[in-house]
Amino acid sequence: MVRKIAKEISLNNVKIEDGFWSQIQKTVIDTVIPYQEKILKDQVSGAAKSHAIANFRIAAGLEGGEFYGMVFQDSDVAKWLEAVAYSLAINPDEELERRADDIIEIIGKAQQEDGYLNTYFTIKEPDRRWENLHECHELYCAGHMMEAAVAYYQATGKDKLLHIMERMADHIGNRFGPDKEKGIPGHQEIEIGLMRLYHATGKEKYRDLAQFFVDERGKNPNYFAEEKKKRGWSHFGLDPKDTKYSQCHLPVREQKKAEGHSVRAVYMYTAMADLAAEIKDQSLYDACVRLWNNMVNKRMYITGAIGSTPAGEGFTIDYDLPNDTGYGETCASIGLIFFAKQMLDINPSNYYGDIMERALYNGVISGMGLDGQHFFYVNPLEVNPGISGELFGYRHVLPQRPKWHACACCPPNLARLLTSLGKYAWSEGEDTIYSHLFIGGELSLEKADIKIETNYPWEGRIVYKVSGKVKDEFQIAIRIPAWAKNTSIRLNGEEIRLSSSIKDGYAYIKKGWDKNGVIEVTFDMPVRRIYSNTKVGANAGCVALMRGPLVYCFEGIDNGDELQSLRIPRKGQIRILPYDRDLLKGIVPIEVEGIKLIGEGSLYSEIPPEEKPVILKAIPYYAWGNRGLNQMRVWMLEKW
Amino acid sequence: MVRKIAKEISLNNVKIEDGFWSQIQKTVIDTVIPYQEKILKDQVSGAAKSHAIANFRIAAGLEGGEFYGMVFQDSDVAKWLEAVAYSLAINPDEELERRADDIIEIIGKAQQEDGYLNTYFTIKEPDRRWENLHECHELYCAGHMMEAAVAYYQATGKDKLLHIMERMADHIGNRFGPDKEKGIPGHQEIEIGLMRLYHATGKEKYRDLAQFFVDERGKNPNYFAEEKKKRGWSHFGLDPKDTKYSQCHLPVREQKKAEGHSVRAVYMYTAMADLAAEIKDQSLYDACVRLWNNMVNKRMYITGAIGSTPAGEGFTIDYDLPNDTGYGETCASIGLIFFAKQMLDINPSNYYGDIMERALYNGVISGMGLDGQHFFYVNPLEVNPGISGELFGYRHVLPQRPKWHACACCPPNLARLLTSLGKYAWSEGEDTIYSHLFIGGELSLEKADIKIETNYPWEGRIVYKVSGKVKDEFQIAIRIPAWAKNTSIRLNGEEIRLSSSIKDGYAYIKKGWDKNGVIEVTFDMPVRRIYSNTKVGANAGCVALMRGPLVYCFEGIDNGDELQSLRIPRKGQIRILPYDRDLLKGIVPIEVEGIKLIGEGSLYSEIPPEEKPVILKAIPYYAWGNRGLNQMRVWMLEKW
Repeated sequence: MVRKIAKEISLNNVKIEDGFWSQIQKTVIDTVIPYQEKILKDQVSGAAKSHAIANFRIAAGLEGGEFYGMVFQDSDVAKWLEAVAYSLAINPDEELERRADDIIEIIGKAQQEDGYLNTYFTIKEPDRRWENLHECHELYCAGHMMEAAVAYYQATGKDKLLHIMERMADHIGNRFGPDKEKGIPGHQEIEIGLMRLYHATGKEKYRDLAQFFVDERGKNPNYFAEEKKKRGWSHFGLDPKDTKYSQCHLPVREQKKAEGHSVRAVYMYTAMADLAAEIKDQSLYDACVRLWNNMVNKRMYITGAIGSTPAGEGFTIDYDLPNDTGYGETCASIGLIFFAKQMLDINPSNYYGDIMERALYNGVISGMGLDGQHFFYVNPLEVNPGISGELFGYRHVLPQRPKWHACACCPPNLARLLTSLGKYAWSEGEDTIYSHLFIGGELSLEKADIKIETNYPWEGRIVYKVSGKVKDEFQIAIRIPAWAKNTSIRLNGEEIRLSSSIKDGYAYIKKGWDKNGVIEVTFDMPVRRIYSNTKVGANAGCVALMRGPLVYCFEGIDNGDELQSLRIPRKGQIRILPYDRDLLKGIVPIEVEGIKLIGEGSLYSEIPPEEKPVILKAIPYYAWGNRGLNQMRVWMLEKW
Repeated sequence: MVRKIAKEISLNNVKIEDGFWSQIQKTVIDTVIPYQEKILKDQVSGAAKSHAIANFRIAAGLEGGEFYGMVFQDSDVAKWLEAVAYSLAINPDEELERRADDIIEIIGKAQQEDGYLNTYFTIKEPDRRWENLHECHELYCAGHMMEAAVAYYQATGKDKLLHIMERMADHIGNRFGPDKEKGIPGHQEIEIGLMRLYHATGKEKYRDLAQFFVDERGKNPNYFAEEKKKRGWSHFGLDPKDTKYSQCHLPVREQKKAEGHSVRAVYMYTAMADLAAEIKDQSLYDACVRLWNNMVNKRMYITGAIGSTPAGEGFTIDYDLPNDTGYGETCASIGLIFFAKQMLDINPSNYYGDIMERALYNGVISGMGLDGQHFFYVNPLEVNPGISGELFGYRHVLPQRPKWHACACCPPNLARLLTSLGKYAWSEGEDTIYSHLFIGGELSLEKADIKIETNYPWEGRIVYKVSGKVKDEFQIAIRIPAWAKNTSIRLNGEEIRLSSSIKDGYAYIKKGWDKNGVIEVTFDMPVRRIYSNTKVGANAGCVALMRGPLVYCFEGIDNGDELQSLRIPRKGQIRILPYDRDLLKGIVPIEVEGIKLIGEGSLYSEIPPEEKPVILKAIPYYAWGNRGLNQMRVWMLEKW
């Protein structure tokens, strides 16, 4: 029977002190969150107007004026508040907390008598509430604000926003349900919000409402078309006949392939997995497994990016993974992490954990420039200046990170993920503490305090110093990545037998921990040459390099013009360079024996190009595009 | 000083009897031309309505009704008439000629008192004549009808349409000119039409008017924007600020790169070259050479296709030649042949002749299905079912030829080119007869009758049996393709010294021909492995196969699924199979020792795929897509 054997830990119990992640968290806390606050408050001159806080003030009757922005503008405030909550858990900041409280005050005042909360409809189209679930994001905004409310409550103990969102959830529950109006959200998210509200409050009505939205989806594939006909107006002009776009082409339990808008898809799968475990619904879980399998085995980039086309920002067909025209939205990889974590808590397996880590270290953090001020929505695996971002078919693939966008979904989504890393690094089961990610710091649970020391992802050594607090035996379960070589685990200096202690890629170390223990996990991290399934046309003839969880890439600035003229011989030497603290905020570069082809200059020639030996330099993919406009490739042509 | 050293021959003096081309001409004459006639007359049930003849009848006052179709619908009739003219020269057909005469009658009646001829404006917007040169194709339609008029006059001796179009040319000349209205056509073509009118009639006013349009173009890059502002209405909504699109970004003599809509570009270059030679304008000719060089050395597919993007159906940037998303419009390659022929008549060199042949045998005839009933506008070098024609960025790349299109430019353009092949195969200079293409048949000129026997392009042997008719010595100049190996030329059985007789890739054989002579040209045609400039990202790691003028390709039907999993070893054996008369209307297939990669099934794997030796089969590119929906690739990954 499907159930969660592990659960989320409280962020208040984790302290991240990590060579890799602490500086990224610091960038988010010092740069991204304050910058976003200024954006929301329209205090950045030259930036596109947000008006998001102003919308709440107007809806609250605190000032006059008109609504401005996207129909989902409220969600920017929600994501920011959620990130603020997590950041307060990392780094208490009274001033920031006071400003967040002030905003929550305004949100409370913007809530209507009947619990309804949405500034667009309150200000602009009060008579059209709930008429256009397909396009108008009321449920989406509510879901994000529920997530913020739970996070803020958990981080600060303050329940004002939680109560606001409970009232809104009740408002929604009064309207929609099995025996009421059978609506479904156009953009899934409310399901996640309601499940979190349920987890935080224990009130089953929120879980039931989430279940209603999950169960109802796809039962009537014409729902949005009928809704459109009924209301007789349109907001964006979305085509309701494109049912795959919003995953309502089939009842969710019957869906077999990852289809449509990739962010909507993974948000939905996340809620499905959470719900399946809570209500012990095997068929719902089976659908999650099927969708996961299809997505990660046939529709995912090596970086954990998903979504192969800008058309609908979505999935296409199996093995269609173009490197230079794909989408790979940052938010979609973030959603993949959400989904992975739910699957991990049901079935702790490196099959899920490795993908969660892959997305995190590659396709997610590639979305943010090292300065925390520039962001990619689209995360390509190849860019070519003059083509990428400019020509037809490539216009969405920007070759450099721009500043904040008008549609600001990815930066705040990055902010909330990166400030809540502890939730993904750990889970706690009845008699087991699970270590999913290798992130240095301290963990304080009921059973034990654990100190983690590591130079991961640059070194394959992680030390867990466990101070037990209980007399009973319990287990520490540590993910051993499938790619790890020569893994060794020592407990208090003594090597333990892996064959008997590993299950589903997790090493289980059980003992009484009342006497302290030190677990030392080591594995080799050679550079791995990765080959793509031959069905993937885009990678034909190519090899990619990975080391540890990191995908590497080649940039023009290191390797000269014409990356496509370079070849990596299959037997060539690869050298892992020492950690360079001055390069790209600190990375381990890789040197590769390569070949550069030099032709005689004709467009077409019977003479094969000459070969010149060269040394190529690769950097972690996440760090690309931080040194000006230049070419970049992950998949390099091989010679063998 | 630039001048034409050779001129066009009359089609009445050539009779093509050729194993390769005669059946293609027969398909055009038996299938394409009659089908198009039925289309123009709306006699094909189920096909999109053309109404093109009806438009002329309505404009002529012969029937009532409204204009229907594109603003350039008249040009369909013009191109058909031009093809009919050429077909009558090949294959006299009284019935067809009578029907063409009838249509010319109607055209005459549709001409207005003042000489104006255009059914769209005559019927639909009589007050808007000449207000929208940018979008409304009046000059374009006139140019095509001038071409038809000249062709019909030359083929039949009938000058009715010629006089009609002289009146229209005079009407245009009365309106536009250096001291009159300074208009330029949105879509170049009138320049070619006027030059042909000049060549046929000897009247310099037509050449002068062509020169005006050429000279005026790009002088004022804002011309179309100003025109739009002045008239205050729009037809298609074209953006006049995109001046490169219609090559008016710079005065033509200052243009250095092939830019914009590729058909417009090559039509313009064709007229520029013709005019440059006629008026001995070196700077205009220099521009032609520059534009030619840029186009064929940096912006042309190996098939002679041009235009790398559907956006504006145009050129992009140097070396951007995507195989699966390019455009390569059939009409553009046809225009490239027009341009090449003009350049050849100024400077007979295989530098031009080889490209003319390349486009003809590959990117042009690929536009027509072997049945003469299905046509490609876009000629890709790679298609992948499920992606091509379906996904974003690939929708324009149909993986199978559809039937006649609503915008019917390419099929009639193919028809007129393929029925007038003799014009491209030969030129005649003062003391030289030039053989540009190797096409069997008979040529009857003032100086000599020549019989040509060949199995080209399947065999590298061409025999010219020359019966001289004059006493003076003259030369036969025969293009020797740059790719030909071990060329030998025998005159009456005696080998001649090539080193002293070849200039610019043409072998000049001078003698008195009053005693007959037999020239036998032979060369080896091994399969050539072609490598692309390393700047072309799309072809990185790949090799293409050519034999003689033919580019070869690989289809799924011959080589199984996943063409991208195949590798061609650099040292592998290649076998030229015997001519197969039953395959694709008769071709010489090629067998190649190849490797098929077989992976272990994962999406990403550290294990390189296994290699299995396979025998691959390649067919001429022009014949692809005639055996159902399947994958196709020209550029194949190499192993070396």
